[in-house]
Amino acid sequence: MAGNSIGQLFKVSTFGESHGHALGGVVDGVPAGLELNEADLQIDLDRRKPGQSRYTTQRREGDEIKILSGVFEGKTTGTSIGLLIENTDQRSKDYSKIADVFRPGHGDYTYWHKYGHRDYRGGGRSSARETAIRVAAGGIAKKYLRQIHGIEINACLSQLGPIKAELFNWSAVEQNPFFFPDESKLEALDEYMRDLKKSGDSIGAKVMVVAKNVPVGLGEPVFDRLDAELAHSLMSINAVKGVEIGDGFAVVEQKGSEHRDELTPDGFTSNHAGGVLAGISTGQDIVASIALKPTSSITIPGQSINTANESIEMITKGRHDPCVGIRAIPIAEAMMAITLMDHLLRQRGQNPDVNLPHGPIK
Amino acid sequence: MAGNSIGQLFKVSTFGESHGHALGGVVDGVPAGLELNEADLQIDLDRRKPGQSRYTTQRREGDEIKILSGVFEGKTTGTSIGLLIENTDQRSKDYSKIADVFRPGHGDYTYWHKYGHRDYRGGGRSSARETAIRVAAGGIAKKYLRQIHGIEINACLSQLGPIKAELFNWSAVEQNPFFFPDESKLEALDEYMRDLKKSGDSIGAKVMVVAKNVPVGLGEPVFDRLDAELAHSLMSINAVKGVEIGDGFAVVEQKGSEHRDELTPDGFTSNHAGGVLAGISTGQDIVASIALKPTSSITIPGQSINTANESIEMITKGRHDPCVGIRAIPIAEAMMAITLMDHLLRQRGQNPDVNLPHGPIK
Amino acid sequence: MAGNSIGQLFKVSTFGESHGHALGGVVDGVPAGLELNEADLQIDLDRRKPGQSRYTTQRREGDEIKILSGVFEGKTTGTSIGLLIENTDQRSKDYSKIADVFRPGHGDYTYWHKYGHRDYRGGGRSSARETAIRVAAGGIAKKYLRQIHGIEINACLSQLGPIKAELFNWSAVEQNPFFFPDESKLEALDEYMRDLKKSGDSIGAKVMVVAKNVPVGLGEPVFDRLDAELAHSLMSINAVKGVEIGDGFAVVEQKGSEHRDELTPDGFTSNHAGGVLAGISTGQDIVASIALKPTSSITIPGQSINTANESIEMITKGRHDPCVGIRAIPIAEAMMAITLMDHLLRQRGQNPDVNLPHGPIK
Amino acid sequence: MAGNSIGQLFKVSTFGESHGHALGGVVDGVPAGLELNEADLQIDLDRRKPGQSRYTTQRREGDEIKILSGVFEGKTTGTSIGLLIENTDQRSKDYSKIADVFRPGHGDYTYWHKYGHRDYRGGGRSSARETAIRVAAGGIAKKYLRQIHGIEINACLSQLGPIKAELFNWSAVEQNPFFFPDESKLEALDEYMRDLKKSGDSIGAKVMVVAKNVPVGLGEPVFDRLDAELAHSLMSINAVKGVEIGDGFAVVEQKGSEHRDELTPDGFTSNHAGGVLAGISTGQDIVASIALKPTSSITIPGQSINTANESIEMITKGRHDPCVGIRAIPIAEAMMAITLMDHLLRQRGQNPDVNLPHGPIK
Repeated sequence: MAGNSIGQLFKVSTFGESHGHALGGVVDGVPAGLELNEADLQIDLDRRKPGQSRYTTQRREGDEIKILSGVFEGKTTGTSIGLLIENTDQRSKDYSKIADVFRPGHGDYTYWHKYGHRDYRGGGRSSARETAIRVAAGGIAKKYLRQIHGIEINACLSQLGPIKAELFNWSAVEQNPFFFPDESKLEALDEYMRDLKKSGDSIGAKVMVVAKNVPVGLGEPVFDRLDAELAHSLMSINAVKGVEIGDGFAVVEQKGSEHRDELTPDGFTSNHAGGVLAGISTGQDIVASIALKPTSSITIPGQSINTANESIEMITKGRHDPCVGIRAIPIAEAMMAITLMDHLLRQRGQNPDVNLPHGPIK
Repeated sequence: MAGNSIGQLFKVSTFGESHGHALGGVVDGVPAGLELNEADLQIDLDRRKPGQSRYTTQRREGDEIKILSGVFEGKTTGTSIGLLIENTDQRSKDYSKIADVFRPGHGDYTYWHKYGHRDYRGGGRSSARETAIRVAAGGIAKKYLRQIHGIEINACLSQLGPIKAELFNWSAVEQNPFFFPDESKLEALDEYMRDLKKSGDSIGAKVMVVAKNVPVGLGEPVFDRLDAELAHSLMSINAVKGVEIGDGFAVVEQKGSEHRDELTPDGFTSNHAGGVLAGISTGQDIVASIALKPTSSITIPGQSINTANESIEMITKGRHDPCVGIRAIPIAEAMMAITLMDHLLRQRGQNPDVNLPHGPIK
Repeated sequence: MAGNSIGQLFKVSTFGESHGHALGGVVDGVPAGLELNEADLQIDLDRRKPGQSRYTTQRREGDEIKILSGVFEGKTTGTSIGLLIENTDQRSKDYSKIADVFRPGHGDYTYWHKYGHRDYRGGGRSSARETAIRVAAGGIAKKYLRQIHGIEINACLSQLGPIKAELFNWSAVEQNPFFFPDESKLEALDEYMRDLKKSGDSIGAKVMVVAKNVPVGLGEPVFDRLDAELAHSLMSINAVKGVEIGDGFAVVEQKGSEHRDELTPDGFTSNHAGGVLAGISTGQDIVASIALKPTSSITIPGQSINTANESIEMITKGRHDPCVGIRAIPIAEAMMAITLMDHLLRQRGQNPDVNLPHGPIK
Repeated sequence: MAGNSIGQLFKVSTFGESHGHALGGVVDGVPAGLELNEADLQIDLDRRKPGQSRYTTQRREGDEIKILSGVFEGKTTGTSIGLLIENTDQRSKDYSKIADVFRPGHGDYTYWHKYGHRDYRGGGRSSARETAIRVAAGGIAKKYLRQIHGIEINACLSQLGPIKAELFNWSAVEQNPFFFPDESKLEALDEYMRDLKKSGDSIGAKVMVVAKNVPVGLGEPVFDRLDAELAHSLMSINAVKGVEIGDGFAVVEQKGSEHRDELTPDGFTSNHAGGVLAGISTGQDIVASIALKPTSSITIPGQSINTANESIEMITKGRHDPCVGIRAIPIAEAMMAITLMDHLLRQRGQNPDVNLPHGPIK
């Protein structure tokens, strides 16, 4: 129970279902004095919004964020911030037929068994629609981290099915509908997606998220290591099945002499560790990658059962993304920001000046 | 700060450094009435213990666990359980030379910058030695899960460097010093490790951990999803750089029609999801994998710096495992057990009878 | 930071200022299947609402509660419940004059020093207006506790200034604007309040809150004792300066032979303990009392300072209750309900059948 | 479940029963660099120790504290601190007769019903013996608060049965076995206690605890107000039935014009609030009082029942304090210190320089 909050000093609590009245949440722990308005948060919501390209669902949500509290005369007051997004496009008629069936690969089966009573419209609470509020909450963290500490967080699609980015040109990312950093692959992506859509199938993806200018010292061993908490927050994103820090699973075949990042008076010579050693940030870029599964909402028929345990055949109609990874870009940034923000505040307990290496005791 | 606890209803808090007086902890939230004695916990501690084979460190720790409270007349009382392991083999003289240097790939650099004052002996708190208490605490969870719910948790080494298990024969796992499930590869492993030792280098590994008979319904969306909490607890193990649930990173190249686990009246037809859908257990096996980096404690010289930011050359002497993944087997089981135990208790809040699908309200 | 949540398995997170757009919150941990609608919550909001009698502030807020999520087809789904009350009567012009001054006895001084930037309108977040959402959240807990466990929670005003209730006639409580259980004192109260209003002063009060039919076994020693958590939740109500369980401060002059509640095969012979022994509910009524200070919003001039540390004279104008204790009745019930609900769910971890004395292990 | 931890950034987790092997705990969140040794903690343990005067139990515990981790070369390292006190005087034979009976006024009845299986020796976990570890953990907090922030925390016995302190001479407190601040009443106390002991009865007490030099700004509204968290921590002490902040229950009969603490450019003119306004410290002394019930361990026979629900007569033999309030002095100080320490660290999240009024954003 009570799994709808994340963070300790920077705490985000959310509510809302795909086809309910609204999505919303409470963002607690924003220090006072940060300039903040709705436009700051709308930017990322617009990046996440469906209907942005022909490869994402054509459902049209305004996703207009409202700040209901915690900001006064344009600045945060240190009190909790209420966020709200009203659901304007609810077409719940699309979903009434699936009230008693379990779509394979979705939360229908597990929600029904856990709760016994569920909102079946569009996946209810298990829909990725809830991530809109994460993006808004993460937007607050991103702004604080950037403005007060110069920390920049950016994500991109590093792989879509068989197509991998080989060049990482960050300036390209926001210039294409795939958030892809390798412009030489855009045409291939376009073609791949066109074929995929025709086939009615979906595809997995890999997203990389990087934080720059993170001070050394964030992370609280032994359990609340920065990487462990990032794994938690990134794995909590819908459809994520794997999380890597730095070289991730490639380390399985690496030797110690290859992997260890050597140190010189000018800094580290490499960043296989992804910016985290022994659970604490090194001051290098924090690099994480996540694997997103292909959505199960496809038009290719599949076997399933209904609540009476009878065999049925499923075809998921409606408006769905053939690659949910694309829209996960701002979500991954938001979760990275939420975790870093929480750890920045927690580190101040140990050492109030997080931008200096050493602590308050002289 | 305060990162040395994990879990909410089943809460484990630990202390202890590699070369301090003792390791210990508090295990809170064990229901009353469980038969428990020290021998129950010693089994896994002995599996983790160094010096078990010629491929693990020859440091000899008794690792004798003591239960100091919470058990009366052979049964748990529902009160917190105090655990203690005294450090008997502390040879701290080995480490005095590295007081002012940062071993590359270790926590020396980050601990020094975070805290300003650190116990440099054997890595202090950042040493994997602290996992001994995790194994003991996890042993309590394992016993409860097995005895009350029939849940079995087992881990094995699924890959060591380039050598992958192709057969998963669980009965073989405890019969060889590598905890490897594919007996046909044992000779190759032996040879690989012999060469590795000669070279003074180390190698990464992959560990798979599986829980059987987990009831449907564990996991608390949207942030405390079962997979997100598993990612947290598994990534908190020393040297882990990646976590996968089910097919993990393979999903990046999968299609929806391949990945989705179809349902029939007799159950799921596959388990690509690894036993978790929408953050809630499906009743299938929970399957997770972790990537463990090659230890940086190798005898091949590497560049580093000291606290005065001067260039130095490092060679790590002392007793070290060339593949830390091998000893991670019982640790991975322990962390899986701790997380499942916590979620079992949390799920009782929603539905007191976790072995029945539906809740308490009729 | 992050002090706007309460509870562990039943978790309430709130936001909202006196004169902001709205008050709201997230109620997490309501088991699925509870029948719930807005009217269930409106009852207590109406009991708390200002303008109910001539002795409470004449500010008129609709205080109309909206349930934005977590309820589907009339029943809770086990997912988080979003609550919202829009502020309709904001007259912030009343407050602009006090932007730079600290009203004595209010949070102005401490909020300004803590945050540096504050919403000065009507006390902002420090206004008791935020308790409206507590009352709504508590209403959900009250309904669950009543419906599933037969637990009834009621509060009354047991003392107003010098006038103490001597008879506790619970059926009288909802029949008079003071929520006073002793009808013989109503005339005296009326006269006292009339005089008080004329004088421009305010008065303190004592509120008693009682829970009936609480099962034995709630409370988690040694720190999360039921009485300790009740002390937390009740002391968190605005203006509360003291909390008693059972005989409270009267125990200071009691002897052990007087105080101890003796036991017979038919049950306890008395309830000096107030239903809690060693931090765990006994099955008797849970009895708590709170002391509420007289509001500092009075028309009698007082000395204060402004943000420039200059001496000023303060008179609080506007619409204020001369005795804030009266409106605290439903708030005290709500906080008792929130704490009991959380502990009921936590106790299920130990013993899934909270209505039977013993646990799940046979 | 899991009620054996307190605090968020400064977190104390404890274990241990009255007659078990040992008491111990984990203190997490002590910043690095604090000079600390066992003697620092032994001082308060000796103040709490039984057998100090003829009015406290003659049970003799060495209560020797050991620091097992988290301190290196005389200074804290920022990692978790393990504490241990071995039980040396366990005489459990005294208690075997009461295995199946419920002593009235004790936790026997509630522990048995909650857990079904309990350590009946000397109250097991419900014994006040567990507070020894609180005193040790609080000693760490006290040292940090004093050394780094100049905060001083002191408690005294302000009332014992009918005898109230009228003078508060703090220098007298440590000079008499009652920790009483009014020397003119020492003879009366002595006589009262002599008579009480003869009668075989016990008496309640009131303890006042004061913290000086607390910076303005500690406390996290709306639920984690400083006063609410103090109420939690103080009410969690064995035998406490009431908590007051500042004037406490006296406010019930106060007028607003009396109670409000007026402000001048030189500061507050009074401290009725007890140093907390709107849940945040004002910079004045934090003043709290607690009511401790008379122990139920008396030699005057009382009715009770056994686990078979049969009527029995109880006389509590053994070594018991006729006034448990006396030994609560260092415990009250410890709990105040633990709560202030946690809030000091939490406030650093909002404003890293807790000794300056305003925050980090310019």
